Amino acid sequence: MNPATREKLMGVSVATLCSALFKRGLKNQTIQDVRPVRGKGRNMVGPAFTLRYMPAREDRNPMSIFRNADHPQRVAVETCPEGHVLVMDSRKDARAASAGDILITRLMVRGGAGVVTDGGFRDAMRIAELDIPAYHSRPSSPTNLTLHEAIDINVPIGCGDVAVFPGDIMVGDDDSVIVIPAEIADEIADEAVEMTAYEDFVVERVKQGETIIGLYPATREENLALFSEWRKANGR
Amino acid sequence: MNPATREKLMGVSVATLCSALFKRGLKNQTIQDVRPVRGKGRNMVGPAFTLRYMPAREDRNPMSIFRNADHPQRVAVETCPEGHVLVMDSRKDARAASAGDILITRLMVRGGAGVVTDGGFRDAMRIAELDIPAYHSRPSSPTNLTLHEAIDINVPIGCGDVAVFPGDIMVGDDDSVIVIPAEIADEIADEAVEMTAYEDFVVERVKQGETIIGLYPATREENLALFSEWRKANGR
Amino acid sequence: MNPATREKLMGVSVATLCSALFKRGLKNQTIQDVRPVRGKGRNMVGPAFTLRYMPAREDRNPMSIFRNADHPQRVAVETCPEGHVLVMDSRKDARAASAGDILITRLMVRGGAGVVTDGGFRDAMRIAELDIPAYHSRPSSPTNLTLHEAIDINVPIGCGDVAVFPGDIMVGDDDSVIVIPAEIADEIADEAVEMTAYEDFVVERVKQGETIIGLYPATREENLALFSEWRKANGR
Amino acid sequence: MNPATREKLMGVSVATLCSALFKRGLKNQTIQDVRPVRGKGRNMVGPAFTLRYMPAREDRNPMSIFRNADHPQRVAVETCPEGHVLVMDSRKDARAASAGDILITRLMVRGGAGVVTDGGFRDAMRIAELDIPAYHSRPSSPTNLTLHEAIDINVPIGCGDVAVFPGDIMVGDDDSVIVIPAEIADEIADEAVEMTAYEDFVVERVKQGETIIGLYPATREENLALFSEWRKANGR
Amino acid sequence: MNPATREKLMGVSVATLCSALFKRGLKNQTIQDVRPVRGKGRNMVGPAFTLRYMPAREDRNPMSIFRNADHPQRVAVETCPEGHVLVMDSRKDARAASAGDILITRLMVRGGAGVVTDGGFRDAMRIAELDIPAYHSRPSSPTNLTLHEAIDINVPIGCGDVAVFPGDIMVGDDDSVIVIPAEIADEIADEAVEMTAYEDFVVERVKQGETIIGLYPATREENLALFSEWRKANGR
Amino acid sequence: MNPATREKLMGVSVATLCSALFKRGLKNQTIQDVRPVRGKGRNMVGPAFTLRYMPAREDRNPMSIFRNADHPQRVAVETCPEGHVLVMDSRKDARAASAGDILITRLMVRGGAGVVTDGGFRDAMRIAELDIPAYHSRPSSPTNLTLHEAIDINVPIGCGDVAVFPGDIMVGDDDSVIVIPAEIADEIADEAVEMTAYEDFVVERVKQGETIIGLYPATREENLALFSEWRKANGR
Repeated sequence: MNPATREKLMGVSVATLCSALFKRGLKNQTIQDVRPVRGKGRNMVGPAFTLRYMPAREDRNPMSIFRNADHPQRVAVETCPEGHVLVMDSRKDARAASAGDILITRLMVRGGAGVVTDGGFRDAMRIAELDIPAYHSRPSSPTNLTLHEAIDINVPIGCGDVAVFPGDIMVGDDDSVIVIPAEIADEIADEAVEMTAYEDFVVERVKQGETIIGLYPATREENLALFSEWRKANGR
Repeated sequence: MNPATREKLMGVSVATLCSALFKRGLKNQTIQDVRPVRGKGRNMVGPAFTLRYMPAREDRNPMSIFRNADHPQRVAVETCPEGHVLVMDSRKDARAASAGDILITRLMVRGGAGVVTDGGFRDAMRIAELDIPAYHSRPSSPTNLTLHEAIDINVPIGCGDVAVFPGDIMVGDDDSVIVIPAEIADEIADEAVEMTAYEDFVVERVKQGETIIGLYPATREENLALFSEWRKANGR
Repeated sequence: MNPATREKLMGVSVATLCSALFKRGLKNQTIQDVRPVRGKGRNMVGPAFTLRYMPAREDRNPMSIFRNADHPQRVAVETCPEGHVLVMDSRKDARAASAGDILITRLMVRGGAGVVTDGGFRDAMRIAELDIPAYHSRPSSPTNLTLHEAIDINVPIGCGDVAVFPGDIMVGDDDSVIVIPAEIADEIADEAVEMTAYEDFVVERVKQGETIIGLYPATREENLALFSEWRKANGR
Repeated sequence: MNPATREKLMGVSVATLCSALFKRGLKNQTIQDVRPVRGKGRNMVGPAFTLRYMPAREDRNPMSIFRNADHPQRVAVETCPEGHVLVMDSRKDARAASAGDILITRLMVRGGAGVVTDGGFRDAMRIAELDIPAYHSRPSSPTNLTLHEAIDINVPIGCGDVAVFPGDIMVGDDDSVIVIPAEIADEIADEAVEMTAYEDFVVERVKQGETIIGLYPATREENLALFSEWRKANGR
Repeated sequence: MNPATREKLMGVSVATLCSALFKRGLKNQTIQDVRPVRGKGRNMVGPAFTLRYMPAREDRNPMSIFRNADHPQRVAVETCPEGHVLVMDSRKDARAASAGDILITRLMVRGGAGVVTDGGFRDAMRIAELDIPAYHSRPSSPTNLTLHEAIDINVPIGCGDVAVFPGDIMVGDDDSVIVIPAEIADEIADEAVEMTAYEDFVVERVKQGETIIGLYPATREENLALFSEWRKANGR
Repeated sequence: MNPATREKLMGVSVATLCSALFKRGLKNQTIQDVRPVRGKGRNMVGPAFTLRYMPAREDRNPMSIFRNADHPQRVAVETCPEGHVLVMDSRKDARAASAGDILITRLMVRGGAGVVTDGGFRDAMRIAELDIPAYHSRPSSPTNLTLHEAIDINVPIGCGDVAVFPGDIMVGDDDSVIVIPAEIADEIADEAVEMTAYEDFVVERVKQGETIIGLYPATREENLALFSEWRKANGR
């Protein structure tokens, strides 16, 4: 992805991105009911590389299946390109894990930008310690074979009721994760940077005692003038 | 599929098939929370032909998208082979429809053996009148574009928390729908016919006042002897 | 139970019983999310005989376990006293069955007054044909062994979020099922008969065009007088 | 409401109305998880008259509260204008009733066009027999006082996750209920009548063996010509 | 509100208040499934000022609607009286936000005592840093316009299945939030202070190895005598 | 329980135990949707001592019932053997508490090894400070009497959809809690220690840049050799 876009997206919140997408009629881009295993205090940004799970059938999913070097879960971890975010469609079912700390450590070492599932991670207490952003619904200790069979790599999926196409830009902060369609990521990043500047200005004004009426949004002309000054003063 | 197997599966219940599969360690083959749009008083039997939906993104799913002759939902209905059951992965979300009466009429005319979704059908009141078995979660009037984008045809899917592979044998009765892995459909059909004979014998005995202890299952030898006679007498 | 009470309870609705219990501070007696397998057009009435299920553990619940003559599910069906209602605590989980048509046929033949589960029945399409009232959440084809282990007979249970003690009086109509604590069943029956008379009078008046204000409840004196006449005229 | 619009809306399905609203960007107008107490085989049409419930607090909701002639539930039933549909916001909670057969009988006698709740009705088995369309989630015998306090009449509400403003046009068929914003009801009715004509033509063609590709929607010119002839032939 | 009552309520737990209300027959006063955005280690106390959301309709809720100085969400934040708690009825739907950090900063600056929603807050990671108690279900980044339309200010509402009337006293601790009916807030505060003294005494005794039988509750006389001494010794 | 087994189980994760049980066909042993009130950074290990709750009926559950020295909740806390884990079946209903800080303090003082409910604890913020591991679904301030009646001590129960028999070995870490059938606890502990050694080796290798293919599981011979060396070097 565009490095400038990546840089911009590191500095904006998912909430601001939601509003930028809402204006374009995209109202359903935030992955629902997914949260950081542990807040990192910095954003996760990267293109989506996807893994699709389907319900597991007992005869196809003994523990020995992992001896297969072509098992899609393993292959996904070993082929997810550097700087990408591995996004898993676990059908919102956290009763069994989507992955554990060993695989996510491997993904981290390989340069993955993050990992997201709408299910749960096992060894979440250890994943929390890793230097890679990870998002899930809740900790889930049972192996994925219990309920999930990894079936497809890098196809369009659903994650937390949101459409994710390979290459879409994933952004996560300490609240949640959003999916930006690849083709508008650059313009959304630009707009979000602008919005963030104004929001920072607003927060400063509000902390000084200013009313939000006329300020947020800026329906009073003078606020736009003040913002213009503030940008100069703050190099934004 | 094997015509003899089809014939056998027309005469057994989903409950009996559940038990036959349970004995082989397959405990999760009944599609959960799905029911007939209207009970037909006869079984639906046929190999699965699948359609996968993912969450819809607004810009990709205007009403005009249906003008595209390659739209996967339309193509699925037009290519589902005769005698097959069209099975849809709607991510258990019945807030928008999986299909409506026009498409299902077309499927019926083309010789489809039935249709199953883990979402809902629109025009369910009309689908109920058609001469094709249809199973869903509940009626749902909004067009599929509202929440669902048809994305893949005849890939492995989940339906009602059950794994469905193309070619698996679907059987539905007036209670529910079950998925029989293709490779064991013949033997399961054989076994279910045997079990059904015994169950019919049991019901007859129970109605005559017999206790179920020793009869169901047959732990008293004499019951096996009586069953043997009953089979001869009833041509089973 | 008192035959006169049984007779009275055959002629009143669950809704009326709810209101009589509400007046005594009992607000949570209707089994939630349970319905007739098929409406019988007549009430189910009888004391509760209970069966408690717990979650099934795979090694304890092979199909062969039913060969055990002491299996609590079988024993429950064979020992439920005549005129009683078999009430099952299935932990509101209808993903596997609580019982099937063979057992319920046996219960019917043995004189059971009805059967209730907060899970689901398999062979529901056949149970619907039997001459015994049966209530569940939805049809469920998998054998109970899949998820439920029968563990206790005739202990206090929960059913659909309601407390059921052995001997409590169960009443079901075509809408739902209610639990009347045994010790107040007689007085509740009396009161419900009185309330039903008044409600029938009210419906008649309302159909004639009367307002409900002052009539339901009877805050206008004249309505009580009219009701008194109506009772004489109608032998109520 | 416009009598011509009412007439038109009597002859179209909720599914068709959904599609007409979808085209205008209104994608969330069908009341979710609500169904007819009993299908009437004819539409319910009328402007919304609303009742808002809030959670009940025990001290404010003894049975005696109904003696108050100003109780909003009773007042709603007695003031709902002729030809209107009484729509109740029960916060999607069917664990206690929204109303029962006496009130709905009164509403019917007063000329109400129908009644809708996103909770449940008590005495549903009797409401089913009345000559007024009624829609709910499921039967619920406990009196509304158990969980619901009627608090506001004819204010904007939510019903089954849909916005309902007083005067919006409600249409129900045997599948579900939809809310048409008052200001576009006439044009939506017109469009739906046109769409219905085309859909009827399509169904006829499909039953004759025609493919849906090019026909539904009409991307092949010849189909529009055939439709034009069909309209003449059928007086549509 | 009574400053002495406020002071007392700052020093008791929601659990203790629950028990005091339970004794008066009020069993449903704790807002369900709501938690602090971040525990503050001190109570939130103040009268309720309410905001009611209804489902959003797309045409009424473009982003530009916020330019309206009368938008109820904005007005609520600007008119909530000092020392009050802003309580929002978001219909338990956290798929879109109830408010974000800018509005809650404004509320804080204006002297609001806290904010509660049964939905979710956007910018929750920033709200956590503010010096105002905030309670929600989970972080939710999408703007409220996506699903919620602010419609009414300071009317009776439901929040987390609990009735909230304007002026009711809200108390939150690091576990949850409770609603005390305004008219009994003083007496409940008094009682809770007494109960808290006894509970603190009990905890001390239990830590010393005392059994809870006879102590909690105090059915052994000697424990009341010991408590009396303890009060003197501890100035309680 | 076997002290050596206890020691071993202190050093393995719930995820590893899940996998060991999965290999024996036990796929449903992790208590679902339950988490530590506060992570302790060390395991909870001990045999299960159980308490069964049923739904509360108002007349049986006034606050005064706690004056009864035989109340099962109190008796459970006073009789749970030292080193055991008190496990509560709260029917997955966290709308009212399963217990509070006073009882859990008493359990701690008496030497309890931990406490688990599939409901919620009141005073969770204080329980978090205690030196005893506690697991629940979420904080819940209402007294248990509101919804739960303690009815049975040390019978087989369900907890979070898992079967728990008295004496089964409970193990909790900072992610979740698992139930090991008593009769296989020793062998599972042995196996889990072995698995943990290999997993620790794998994590070390992966952090050094090794691929997981052939390593996890060990399908490349050389990895087994390296592991053998690693064990010697690390005294494992």
